[in-house]
Amino acid sequence: MPYFDAASAAPLHPVARQALLASLDEGWADPARLYREGRRARLLLDAAREAAAEAVGCRADELVFTPSGTRAVHAGVSGALAGRWRAGNRLVVSAVEHSSVLHAAEVHAAAGGAVTEVPVDRSGAVDAGAFAAALGEGAALACLQSANHEVGTAQPVAEVAEACRGVGVPLLVDAAQSLGWGPVEGGWSLLAASAHKWGGPAGVGLLAVRKGVRFAPQGPSDERESGRAPGFENLPAIVAAAASLRAVRAEAEAEGARLRGLVDRIRAWVPELVPDVEVVGDPVRRLPHLVTFSCLYVDGETLLHELDREGFSVSSGSSCTSSTLTPSHVLRAMGVLSEGNVRVSLPAGTAAEDVDRFLDVLPGVVAGVRERLGVPAATPVAGSGAVAGSGAVAGSGAVAGSGAVGDSGPVADSGPVADSGAVADGVPVVDALVVDALGRRCPIPVIELAKVIGDVPVGGTVRVLADDEAARLDIPAWCEMRGQEYLGEEPSPRGGVAYRVRRAA
Amino acid sequence: MPYFDAASAAPLHPVARQALLASLDEGWADPARLYREGRRARLLLDAAREAAAEAVGCRADELVFTPSGTRAVHAGVSGALAGRWRAGNRLVVSAVEHSSVLHAAEVHAAAGGAVTEVPVDRSGAVDAGAFAAALGEGAALACLQSANHEVGTAQPVAEVAEACRGVGVPLLVDAAQSLGWGPVEGGWSLLAASAHKWGGPAGVGLLAVRKGVRFAPQGPSDERESGRAPGFENLPAIVAAAASLRAVRAEAEAEGARLRGLVDRIRAWVPELVPDVEVVGDPVRRLPHLVTFSCLYVDGETLLHELDREGFSVSSGSSCTSSTLTPSHVLRAMGVLSEGNVRVSLPAGTAAEDVDRFLDVLPGVVAGVRERLGVPAATPVAGSGAVAGSGAVAGSGAVAGSGAVGDSGPVADSGPVADSGAVADGVPVVDALVVDALGRRCPIPVIELAKVIGDVPVGGTVRVLADDEAARLDIPAWCEMRGQEYLGEEPSPRGGVAYRVRRAA
Repeated sequence: MPYFDAASAAPLHPVARQALLASLDEGWADPARLYREGRRARLLLDAAREAAAEAVGCRADELVFTPSGTRAVHAGVSGALAGRWRAGNRLVVSAVEHSSVLHAAEVHAAAGGAVTEVPVDRSGAVDAGAFAAALGEGAALACLQSANHEVGTAQPVAEVAEACRGVGVPLLVDAAQSLGWGPVEGGWSLLAASAHKWGGPAGVGLLAVRKGVRFAPQGPSDERESGRAPGFENLPAIVAAAASLRAVRAEAEAEGARLRGLVDRIRAWVPELVPDVEVVGDPVRRLPHLVTFSCLYVDGETLLHELDREGFSVSSGSSCTSSTLTPSHVLRAMGVLSEGNVRVSLPAGTAAEDVDRFLDVLPGVVAGVRERLGVPAATPVAGSGAVAGSGAVAGSGAVAGSGAVGDSGPVADSGPVADSGAVADGVPVVDALVVDALGRRCPIPVIELAKVIGDVPVGGTVRVLADDEAARLDIPAWCEMRGQEYLGEEPSPRGGVAYRVRRAA
Repeated sequence: MPYFDAASAAPLHPVARQALLASLDEGWADPARLYREGRRARLLLDAAREAAAEAVGCRADELVFTPSGTRAVHAGVSGALAGRWRAGNRLVVSAVEHSSVLHAAEVHAAAGGAVTEVPVDRSGAVDAGAFAAALGEGAALACLQSANHEVGTAQPVAEVAEACRGVGVPLLVDAAQSLGWGPVEGGWSLLAASAHKWGGPAGVGLLAVRKGVRFAPQGPSDERESGRAPGFENLPAIVAAAASLRAVRAEAEAEGARLRGLVDRIRAWVPELVPDVEVVGDPVRRLPHLVTFSCLYVDGETLLHELDREGFSVSSGSSCTSSTLTPSHVLRAMGVLSEGNVRVSLPAGTAAEDVDRFLDVLPGVVAGVRERLGVPAATPVAGSGAVAGSGAVAGSGAVAGSGAVGDSGPVADSGPVADSGAVADGVPVVDALVVDALGRRCPIPVIELAKVIGDVPVGGTVRVLADDEAARLDIPAWCEMRGQEYLGEEPSPRGGVAYRVRRAA
């Protein structure tokens, strides 16, 4: 049963398991105590710190263990901001940071601090120059991930660190996704990571703060972990985390190359095998084990369920798979399609056969979901063959006019209607249509748009009324994929938003 | 090798170990994910929450897991204070709370909040009436431990909860030391605890917040644990924590009674076997497994080392064993002796023979430490036999006059000198002495005082000059134990403090 969601949590590495078991017996006592059980625990803790620091590339006394990567980020951001309050109160982050960074930024903003979000390009990468330009007056701290957790794109950390150093702003690198693959290059000031991403146990994060970086831990503290992470140390898990980091690093080069090949295979074949797919993220500067693609006219939650039924565990940034019903902020910042989104992240040791079987199964699963959503398989909207990337598929009038093929929901009642302004010289020329998708969820608004675009002449417009948050991202993304022209949004008189699209092809 | 420090951390319970191992395989995935590994993890998490809630005596949706008991306290205090900001900003705590509560109180005070500390009696207990009286205007939250972690004294939690309820102030109970022995009685509002105190693994605390209690989590949060404990759940450890709580509860009545008998044995025999000992804490209303005593004229750190050498692992609240060189705030609040302090806390399963061997070994160890500190074993100062509790031992002039028997340090140069005001009618009557113990650490100032008290007549005074923080606690405590009269302190012209003692017996 292939598990393809290593970016959420990797299965426990055998070395982690072994180290955990051994230290359950040797490392349960309080390392702050003077008796033998305490001294033994202290030795284990010190050794784990040395090992982790070596893998991170810092001094042991610069590194503390935290209860999770999230807590490491929270402690790092708040401590560095407080340490730098004289310099300013502005936090600079990329728009695609992990939610732990963005949550810390929200708290900073709520307390009166300023936050600057540096945008990313369509591949998910920040531009180092743009990041540097954001480091202006009052910048207290910058945060940049080493590589993105949803699309795998590597960030120009070394260049950004250089720019930060130039203006004296510390850089916190969230290395959660990459630390198992290698140290973070460049002159970072703070670094956070999470053990269960590299095959260590849950319950362990790490925070490195370089000597010389002003740092004032926030919240109640105690004498543990240099006053930076209060509470009794999770020692057996810390030992296991450090041991497994060392173990995965020993395998990183060979295993990284192997997984990179498997991901290349997915990147190449998915658009060949599945119509109307967008593979996102940088194809070269990326994590070795992670690839993300989105399927037009597909409901992400159903897709995940169907893949799960076929034995594949993947995750998704589609709005329907999030508790807030909003698409992933990463996909939004990239401006790429969010519907039918699938993230595949291969754990170390993934068999090539499992990847091949995934590629065998995927096309049928996607076609099945589309069929149930009323997207006729034979129409150009979701036609089979290598249409992906062809840019523009003209909708056929027959499909669009059918209103709600295979869909018995309210769309049938709100099929396309000629816009009232579309009557010229007494002759009704349907060069402007309105699709009412109010109350309908992703991917229905985009499906309805695709159905009718062929009903207007080239140069004609379609307005899609929708109140689903995903439409804001997916309608422009569809236009980009389809070579149609996205004109913008305006308030809809019936509630929600009217998205305006001009038929360009 | 008997380990007698269960109050710091108990060895892993066999059930915890078993549950941890099983859930390493079943519970490593993200419980928020929809695929089978995630669903399996979610089932484990839900079951653990149900089990823990049942043991706590709350609903499952009132309980969240945190990375430690310390973090549970921090989150509980800050969330409850923020939720009650309209009611006031005053936090009421007992003077003997765990440091995690006091650290949270410090942060609250630093942010402009008010803190009221309710004192305790000589047994370490708060008076429920005094606690109730502190719940006046502006009280936002009250914190009271179920039982003290250093001396074992149980607090009147049910009565205090009743008083809190009467005035609408939520009560947070730190149940870290007692939860393994049984649920906390009374109408508490919030409860915090720590798994490694009951034989669960490190890395798991729990925080219960009753429905209806206003609670606003502080700091960055995410969607995990009801927004009250951010970061990936430490699931295998959580499962082990819940399983072992259930297991220790099943054994609690029988094992509690057995350990209570062993502690009674220690409480009865230590004063018989070791001269000049004070056993502290309530002898009846207390934790079953914990007892604390202090030995006059003994250096706590050396005592711990010697006991460790004999194979016994215990802890101490003496100043010399703390990183800050101040005596435990608990002993200080109780006003009892802190020098030569030993806390014995028996883990479940402790053999009676180990306790007997401890009682065999202790007298020799204490005598050895005293001998090395220059306290002659044959003098009344540290005479053998059942002098403990006899109240008043008259110092012999011979010993006091010798200045520094067996002590080659600077005390020899600063032996007792007649106070300048002690010459009356031209005849030198030494009814006032000054002992210079400046620069000397616990227990030297008390040893020097004991040496010279016999040199002044009844009614005469000794002034002890000292700059060791422990002297402030230990000189009055010595007077209380010895039936001498403590007159108070005043600034010393040579630096430090002059502690004034009148010979009463």
